[in-house]
Amino acid sequence: MSRQTRDAGTIRSNLGRSTPTTVHVRGLDLIEMIGTVSLGDFAYLELRGRLPDARESLMFNAIVVALVEHGLTPSALVSRLTALGAPESLQGAVAAGLLGLGNTFVGTIEGAASICQASLPPHVGRRTDQEIAELATQVLTDYAARRAPVPGIGHPVHTPVDPRAQKLFALAREQDFDDEPIRLMEEISRQASAARGRILPVNATGAIGAIAMVLGIPANIARGLGVMARAIGLVAHLLEEQQSPLAATVWSRAERESTTDS
Amino acid sequence: MSRQTRDAGTIRSNLGRSTPTTVHVRGLDLIEMIGTVSLGDFAYLELRGRLPDARESLMFNAIVVALVEHGLTPSALVSRLTALGAPESLQGAVAAGLLGLGNTFVGTIEGAASICQASLPPHVGRRTDQEIAELATQVLTDYAARRAPVPGIGHPVHTPVDPRAQKLFALAREQDFDDEPIRLMEEISRQASAARGRILPVNATGAIGAIAMVLGIPANIARGLGVMARAIGLVAHLLEEQQSPLAATVWSRAERESTTDS
Amino acid sequence: MSRQTRDAGTIRSNLGRSTPTTVHVRGLDLIEMIGTVSLGDFAYLELRGRLPDARESLMFNAIVVALVEHGLTPSALVSRLTALGAPESLQGAVAAGLLGLGNTFVGTIEGAASICQASLPPHVGRRTDQEIAELATQVLTDYAARRAPVPGIGHPVHTPVDPRAQKLFALAREQDFDDEPIRLMEEISRQASAARGRILPVNATGAIGAIAMVLGIPANIARGLGVMARAIGLVAHLLEEQQSPLAATVWSRAERESTTDS
Amino acid sequence: MSRQTRDAGTIRSNLGRSTPTTVHVRGLDLIEMIGTVSLGDFAYLELRGRLPDARESLMFNAIVVALVEHGLTPSALVSRLTALGAPESLQGAVAAGLLGLGNTFVGTIEGAASICQASLPPHVGRRTDQEIAELATQVLTDYAARRAPVPGIGHPVHTPVDPRAQKLFALAREQDFDDEPIRLMEEISRQASAARGRILPVNATGAIGAIAMVLGIPANIARGLGVMARAIGLVAHLLEEQQSPLAATVWSRAERESTTDS
Repeated sequence: MSRQTRDAGTIRSNLGRSTPTTVHVRGLDLIEMIGTVSLGDFAYLELRGRLPDARESLMFNAIVVALVEHGLTPSALVSRLTALGAPESLQGAVAAGLLGLGNTFVGTIEGAASICQASLPPHVGRRTDQEIAELATQVLTDYAARRAPVPGIGHPVHTPVDPRAQKLFALAREQDFDDEPIRLMEEISRQASAARGRILPVNATGAIGAIAMVLGIPANIARGLGVMARAIGLVAHLLEEQQSPLAATVWSRAERESTTDS
Repeated sequence: MSRQTRDAGTIRSNLGRSTPTTVHVRGLDLIEMIGTVSLGDFAYLELRGRLPDARESLMFNAIVVALVEHGLTPSALVSRLTALGAPESLQGAVAAGLLGLGNTFVGTIEGAASICQASLPPHVGRRTDQEIAELATQVLTDYAARRAPVPGIGHPVHTPVDPRAQKLFALAREQDFDDEPIRLMEEISRQASAARGRILPVNATGAIGAIAMVLGIPANIARGLGVMARAIGLVAHLLEEQQSPLAATVWSRAERESTTDS
Repeated sequence: MSRQTRDAGTIRSNLGRSTPTTVHVRGLDLIEMIGTVSLGDFAYLELRGRLPDARESLMFNAIVVALVEHGLTPSALVSRLTALGAPESLQGAVAAGLLGLGNTFVGTIEGAASICQASLPPHVGRRTDQEIAELATQVLTDYAARRAPVPGIGHPVHTPVDPRAQKLFALAREQDFDDEPIRLMEEISRQASAARGRILPVNATGAIGAIAMVLGIPANIARGLGVMARAIGLVAHLLEEQQSPLAATVWSRAERESTTDS
Repeated sequence: MSRQTRDAGTIRSNLGRSTPTTVHVRGLDLIEMIGTVSLGDFAYLELRGRLPDARESLMFNAIVVALVEHGLTPSALVSRLTALGAPESLQGAVAAGLLGLGNTFVGTIEGAASICQASLPPHVGRRTDQEIAELATQVLTDYAARRAPVPGIGHPVHTPVDPRAQKLFALAREQDFDDEPIRLMEEISRQASAARGRILPVNATGAIGAIAMVLGIPANIARGLGVMARAIGLVAHLLEEQQSPLAATVWSRAERESTTDS
């Protein structure tokens, strides 16, 4: 990018504004929202520019709640191991844990959302099952050509069904949201399972990617849903680590084994 | 720490548990909570081990909502500048922004919570105004001796009153929470203002530190409230940066000025 | 990845080994190397498993030296802005700055190294200029098809020649290293310049990507050269920030402009 | 900090300067230094503003070489676990590992350097053994009063002597550097060992903290020596992880054990 291009810009942000007596977020009065708007609804406001209605609130809170806590993941181990060396910096331990939310794990939300967004441009009328099946075939063909795993399907533990995905899709249908992204992910799961000869269910991140599209959250920010949710979970792991530590044991065992001559 | 000590440990975590068909968080069924528990209440569950009642929910959501968005802070600039160089890694840009939530800014929540926790051990009966005043004097004396700024009071913009702190304290009193930490922070503000000859209001992080104690959140995890909340705000800044960029302009101007011979 | 697969593994590392009286790194006695091996040569040992000979040492030190300091880059601004909020955590400020070394900036080393590694598999005999030209054409065709910028060529300031690239290539030829990766990058630059109608020189990261291949450093670790080198530069920026601060001014101006109604 | 104060600033940096045909670092011509100055000497230039002479070069390279590789530390585990989730972002995996270099581990360099810097202000004439002993007693008294561990002494493996510290001190004396910080750390070790009834040797970070002072590196940037050195080591661990992975095994075992009911 040339220097001229860069210099031409202005510096404007419309997220937060303060005067000595007021604070506004996305144009709404923060002081009024404190005590009346929940954290999940406020996150929706930040991402979508307006507060959610009741069904948007239910659905958005549902997907982020599903992302907060996944047990002793690599991210949780990373936050705990980091706190061992730098107890003075809780923010550093959380940040370290978030850095693992990339293409392999939580980043698959973005992958699934991108598939939905690219395959399902705005369209008049409901797509038929046949149309959805063709779109799914196209996605699988593309990923096979690149020898890349299809994001959002398959799970090492939750098989043949990921109960979180199942619940999220059921909620979206109960709430009567557009279900084309859901049908697409389900069809991808079906075709991929048939081709591989083993069940590859839509997993939680696949379901959330589809629902992100339903809620109007752009694919290229969708992994942010996982990042914001998991930040909460990592703080909880750091609290548990203070009360009931395990990181030093993980380290000690790994170090000992790694340096023992066999 | 000796190797023996470390090896003696076991590896146990009680936050999340999965079987092929179930997921539990803090002992509760996640599948049931998806669609019925909001993000803020789920965060409370993670930190406190049980779901909040109505007034705890109101108060907890209030303090984290107050922390999400503070405009174009150093953290927001950091996330945006990081995305400029590493657009492939949204998690990296959020993590970078969180790393600035240290002792100077959001970490003051921890400072204020520590003051309250250390000054107000469990006690039978309501402390008198005189007792609170003596505790405040002691705090100010301690910080003066260390030549350290007292966390949680003073604000460059919100003066003579920080409207967020005012609202949070009003809510806590309406909800009839124990107000001793609040009275202590207010008294510290009063005495410090008198000593300095200018108004040093309780600010948002000071109010949140006091309320963290009221809600039973330990001081040494209290800055985590800011970290989890701000993660949401930083995702929103990254979305705005994609749509309406400013980081390249900030960089270009700084670089040009820094290398212009005067 | 299935749990079974993961569990089958062992935990072995051959980088560092300690006993009460000895420390070995990559099989060599660390105590003997302290005082006799320079930092750059030690880095080569870490990456290649043996100490460099004189020409490898010259070339390796040359490429990392070229990467240490690039002035007030976004990374440098990020480290300085992070220190403003978290002065207690120098490691956090350096880490934040490193997070911007992604696909746009320093990550282009990896891009250029990948091009060289993929285009130039082991081969008997020197490739002719005609062969190199065809390989370059193929690379440009591939990138054009993906509408992606070609990594390692073009620079906003250093034009028509990047003096660092020029110097590095001259050194590599003086030292009589295999120059096929260098010829490939130069030919890519030539063809791209002709196609665009403006000079797109091989830049520093393009040159370093080519030389990484010459030195046997795998492409998928090549951006690590930039990460390790820039860590040094960022520590220097944090030292300068302590002595002659600028981050607060950058922040203040951006915040003020962003919230001024036009 | 008030807005007025912040706005008054200018934005100046003297580390790097570029024109289309030149690059200068700390006032010296980078193009001339590429191929003639080693990485370690260039790092010294960045921190001290001039190139080292021969003995400064020997000593500076010695201390940073001693910091690069410490085997399968928590930091190394963190980098490897992070790469598991975010293989697209090598910079993120290195940054995550660096975040653990805090007060407990590498940050002790800063602690030891601070002790030396505070205890040994500029002074005419060599301090006597008696004076050094009194200064050491004062340090130990201060730390005991705060119930804080004294940084830079004691090691879980390297006992009764840390061979890295021993070698670094021997080199400093051979090179005839001022040895007062060394004598102070040795005396602290001696007195602490006597008081505790077990040998607490000066460890590597204690030795490096003392030598940082000898080399004129300010205490509040001294942990940066560890950060820059360890960045190299972490890149090497990520390379080894690509070739011979262990992170998935560490994760799998920890996760399994943590969720097994006893």
